[in-house]
Amino acid sequence: MSCSLLGASYSRLMTAVAKQNLGTLLVSCPDRRGIVAALAQVLYGHGANILDSDQHTDADARLFFQRIRFDTSELLTDRTSLEHAITEVAERFTMNWQLAYGTRTKRVAVFVSRYDHCLYDLLLRHQAGELDCEIPLVASNHPDLGRVAAQFGIRFEVFPISKDDKAEQEEKELGLLEAEGIDLVVLARYMQILSARFISRYPTRIINIHHSFLPAFVGGRPYHQAYARGVKLVGATAHFATATLDEGPIIEQDVVRCSHRDSVADLERKGRDLEKVVLARAVRWYLDDRILAYGNKTVVFD
Amino acid sequence: MSCSLLGASYSRLMTAVAKQNLGTLLVSCPDRRGIVAALAQVLYGHGANILDSDQHTDADARLFFQRIRFDTSELLTDRTSLEHAITEVAERFTMNWQLAYGTRTKRVAVFVSRYDHCLYDLLLRHQAGELDCEIPLVASNHPDLGRVAAQFGIRFEVFPISKDDKAEQEEKELGLLEAEGIDLVVLARYMQILSARFISRYPTRIINIHHSFLPAFVGGRPYHQAYARGVKLVGATAHFATATLDEGPIIEQDVVRCSHRDSVADLERKGRDLEKVVLARAVRWYLDDRILAYGNKTVVFD
Amino acid sequence: MSCSLLGASYSRLMTAVAKQNLGTLLVSCPDRRGIVAALAQVLYGHGANILDSDQHTDADARLFFQRIRFDTSELLTDRTSLEHAITEVAERFTMNWQLAYGTRTKRVAVFVSRYDHCLYDLLLRHQAGELDCEIPLVASNHPDLGRVAAQFGIRFEVFPISKDDKAEQEEKELGLLEAEGIDLVVLARYMQILSARFISRYPTRIINIHHSFLPAFVGGRPYHQAYARGVKLVGATAHFATATLDEGPIIEQDVVRCSHRDSVADLERKGRDLEKVVLARAVRWYLDDRILAYGNKTVVFD
Amino acid sequence: MSCSLLGASYSRLMTAVAKQNLGTLLVSCPDRRGIVAALAQVLYGHGANILDSDQHTDADARLFFQRIRFDTSELLTDRTSLEHAITEVAERFTMNWQLAYGTRTKRVAVFVSRYDHCLYDLLLRHQAGELDCEIPLVASNHPDLGRVAAQFGIRFEVFPISKDDKAEQEEKELGLLEAEGIDLVVLARYMQILSARFISRYPTRIINIHHSFLPAFVGGRPYHQAYARGVKLVGATAHFATATLDEGPIIEQDVVRCSHRDSVADLERKGRDLEKVVLARAVRWYLDDRILAYGNKTVVFD
Repeated sequence: MSCSLLGASYSRLMTAVAKQNLGTLLVSCPDRRGIVAALAQVLYGHGANILDSDQHTDADARLFFQRIRFDTSELLTDRTSLEHAITEVAERFTMNWQLAYGTRTKRVAVFVSRYDHCLYDLLLRHQAGELDCEIPLVASNHPDLGRVAAQFGIRFEVFPISKDDKAEQEEKELGLLEAEGIDLVVLARYMQILSARFISRYPTRIINIHHSFLPAFVGGRPYHQAYARGVKLVGATAHFATATLDEGPIIEQDVVRCSHRDSVADLERKGRDLEKVVLARAVRWYLDDRILAYGNKTVVFD
Repeated sequence: MSCSLLGASYSRLMTAVAKQNLGTLLVSCPDRRGIVAALAQVLYGHGANILDSDQHTDADARLFFQRIRFDTSELLTDRTSLEHAITEVAERFTMNWQLAYGTRTKRVAVFVSRYDHCLYDLLLRHQAGELDCEIPLVASNHPDLGRVAAQFGIRFEVFPISKDDKAEQEEKELGLLEAEGIDLVVLARYMQILSARFISRYPTRIINIHHSFLPAFVGGRPYHQAYARGVKLVGATAHFATATLDEGPIIEQDVVRCSHRDSVADLERKGRDLEKVVLARAVRWYLDDRILAYGNKTVVFD
Repeated sequence: MSCSLLGASYSRLMTAVAKQNLGTLLVSCPDRRGIVAALAQVLYGHGANILDSDQHTDADARLFFQRIRFDTSELLTDRTSLEHAITEVAERFTMNWQLAYGTRTKRVAVFVSRYDHCLYDLLLRHQAGELDCEIPLVASNHPDLGRVAAQFGIRFEVFPISKDDKAEQEEKELGLLEAEGIDLVVLARYMQILSARFISRYPTRIINIHHSFLPAFVGGRPYHQAYARGVKLVGATAHFATATLDEGPIIEQDVVRCSHRDSVADLERKGRDLEKVVLARAVRWYLDDRILAYGNKTVVFD
Repeated sequence: MSCSLLGASYSRLMTAVAKQNLGTLLVSCPDRRGIVAALAQVLYGHGANILDSDQHTDADARLFFQRIRFDTSELLTDRTSLEHAITEVAERFTMNWQLAYGTRTKRVAVFVSRYDHCLYDLLLRHQAGELDCEIPLVASNHPDLGRVAAQFGIRFEVFPISKDDKAEQEEKELGLLEAEGIDLVVLARYMQILSARFISRYPTRIINIHHSFLPAFVGGRPYHQAYARGVKLVGATAHFATATLDEGPIIEQDVVRCSHRDSVADLERKGRDLEKVVLARAVRWYLDDRILAYGNKTVVFD
């Protein structure tokens, strides 16, 4: 078992372990003795070298969570055998698990409406190499941001949703997501509410940015609500979308100071900066397989 | 008109203008032309030298707010004449105003229950010269913190409030506050809800510390609520107490980062540090006559 | 004298006072009695309505600073007369002063090398209406970022400076700045050191972003320095460029948390976000006439 | 191997694993394959159940670091055997290691001069149960803070160091530290420089709080230096004391915003709050065996 890159950040990992040899296992299960040993045994037995491992136990929920990164370059068997063996352990411990390989780059669709700041931010970070993914698709209910997608050479599709054709339009969107092999949908200030049916097709695979410190200021126009309440900080929250609006598992939050001098327009300006960084962090962590959601909570491994 | 100390912080002001010569005028009124000129004229005419002036207009509420600090050492008339003149202007502009002199040190009562961290913090800051006030009284519904008050040589009174005698006990408290000439009541993790009647006797003169980022987690056990919701930041809010619980004008807020690793006990520990600094800032600003409340908002002059 | 917009932020001001009627006076002088009165008198006498006023005194340096915003829509005379009158007062008090009118939009040149994040950030903020200026010019010592300038339809000029032709190239740059009527030069990760001669032509009109919390990690490769020192926070500093590298008056600074897990590449990634917001704040404040520099310090009015 | 408390915070751990059964192993060594496996094997073989494990590799320094917490309640052998086995592994991998048991509570001496805020803060946190240690001793070069130690019933010793008797006084101090079985010396604004000889006796066991964001403002009067430089943030740094002043491995840092309005006294006031929390965090992490120092850096496990 190699320890040569334990705890290393992605950027450093990449210099040492070829990306295509990297495996990341995410596990959650009822808390019991022997889980760590069993998983370590399986990986060791197949020649997978553990690079990094982090765990968490929610003592109240009696749940155990683990993230293990390993190097597959000296695998004694093959991935299929390894996965069979993991499945066996998983059944014994009633585990949920997912395994991501560096050989497969995740594919992200960005949903937008008219605000362009989060879209620009994601595309520029992607261009700068900060986000390890492909972004083959920008979808919108308005044509406005087509020009931005075009600047980056990305396919742009408009789904002009009205009350009457929402189900139909969503069906088309889902079809497109499937056709494009999308792993993650990012709602980058997308001003439409997705149906429960849509969301159920991408469980904990849709990240939304809400422009308040949730659970304060749920619903519409949170900066106006914040202004009316006279708060001294405004916030932003990235969370997984669930059927219940603004109540999905929170991934990341941050705040910025404001004062009586700030108009709603000032709060919006300050908030835009927050929305960008909070959403980008959440997306980056997702791409890095750092997030495990359970109930309305998340574990985000460092 | 002297400008020699404009915008200076209290500590620096004190080195130059003797505290007893300092006057601070706080004004709020419907927004109209000529307010600034009229006040400047009155002060100038009486020989009061403006040291520092700050204004704010709430364009939505159409309200004007101003704070003026001035030096009375070369007053041409006397304080009574000056106040008469201000009254005259105030009537013309339908102003609310209050005038504080450096000759009168504000008197603060601290209400506590069983948590001692905010009490210790306030008393140590007072001892260190950070809070320009007298603290003649600590009141509680429990005897526990008498030992802390005793360490600092401060009168400690217990009012063991039960459902049946609340009105009666509050009457005694009000009597004591009056007898002690209390200007400001600080609820330093006081676990009793004050009656509307009590609060109406000290309008915008009771500061409470709530252990969440309001309006998130109103009511009891906010750290438990925060833990249950899975937020990534916990906060604290200092606000004026009003008849509606946790809805008074917010004076100051701050947050600290937390993660899935933090238990409720961890949130409480992190929160204690926040509660202390947020409450202390609010109290200091109050003592410095920096806060103007209107509706459920505050103006806090720098 | 109108108070209807005192202390209002730019965005709110704009809704009420037409931008072309706005005047902003910035003043600094030795601290003396009567300055505020004298200036107020002049403005009042000419029918300029004070909207907002803020002052500061550096008691150690014995210097006085003031920023006054006023509405010229009901000017009794004209701008020339007003300026003559201000000049008279200024001579009496040995004042430095500058007066900006809303009728004239400031013109900004951005200097870059190969990093594009600050350039994109400024251009997107400008496009979003956050920066009240024109950006007619991007200059660089490399051709790389021409594509970015082109996306935004902005003139891009390359000055490929070598050791031998630096003076000559700078002369050309200065010529271009003059031809374009540039008010402010923003060094957005420009990797060339400007000569003292160049800087002297734009005193306190060149803003640089340094990628550390100055005065820590002066000079080259500050993220590498920070990594080597093992700090737990990395920072960014926006400052006016002066002849002495990294020692100009600091306008704004901010930091972000890091840990032993962060590689130099991680620090660079985290730092980019800081550099963008810190530089953008400094530029916005400059455009808003909020900054006064003296010695190696700044006053930044709220 | 039990996973039932993996990653749990101290407070939560304590509810489930009796403190006296807790073992914490800290390891550092040249980075090589097989370290994790070897240690896991030894612990597993002796019946020590791993509760929590975290690792880090400094790829540049080619060093590996690990912290393992385990439950000894079902140990198959005894602690002596376990330690022998660890020693064997350690020799094989040229490891530095230290093993702490919950049965032994660490003993802390606090060194102070005249500032009382950090001392009060540590003693109040200790009293509140935030710091899992004993504090049998407060030492000072001045008699002033004896009253504070007395309030908390703690032994107070004065060593009035002068130029001539420094070596002699330090010898007495070292004798006292040894007599009291001190594990950690906390310099809580202790205004004497310890000799290299003194420090060499407590390597990475002396934590100092410096009142600036190091490496900015090394040496004396950092708030005055910060004021003179006109920075927009002031900071505090907790670090291990080494023979070279202010250059020891940094454990924790934080900053607070300031402005041109802040006098040196204001910076000192704001800084005191920082010093307290930064020092307290560093001490808590030390007591929790979270810190590993190497060169002039630290690894601080979450």
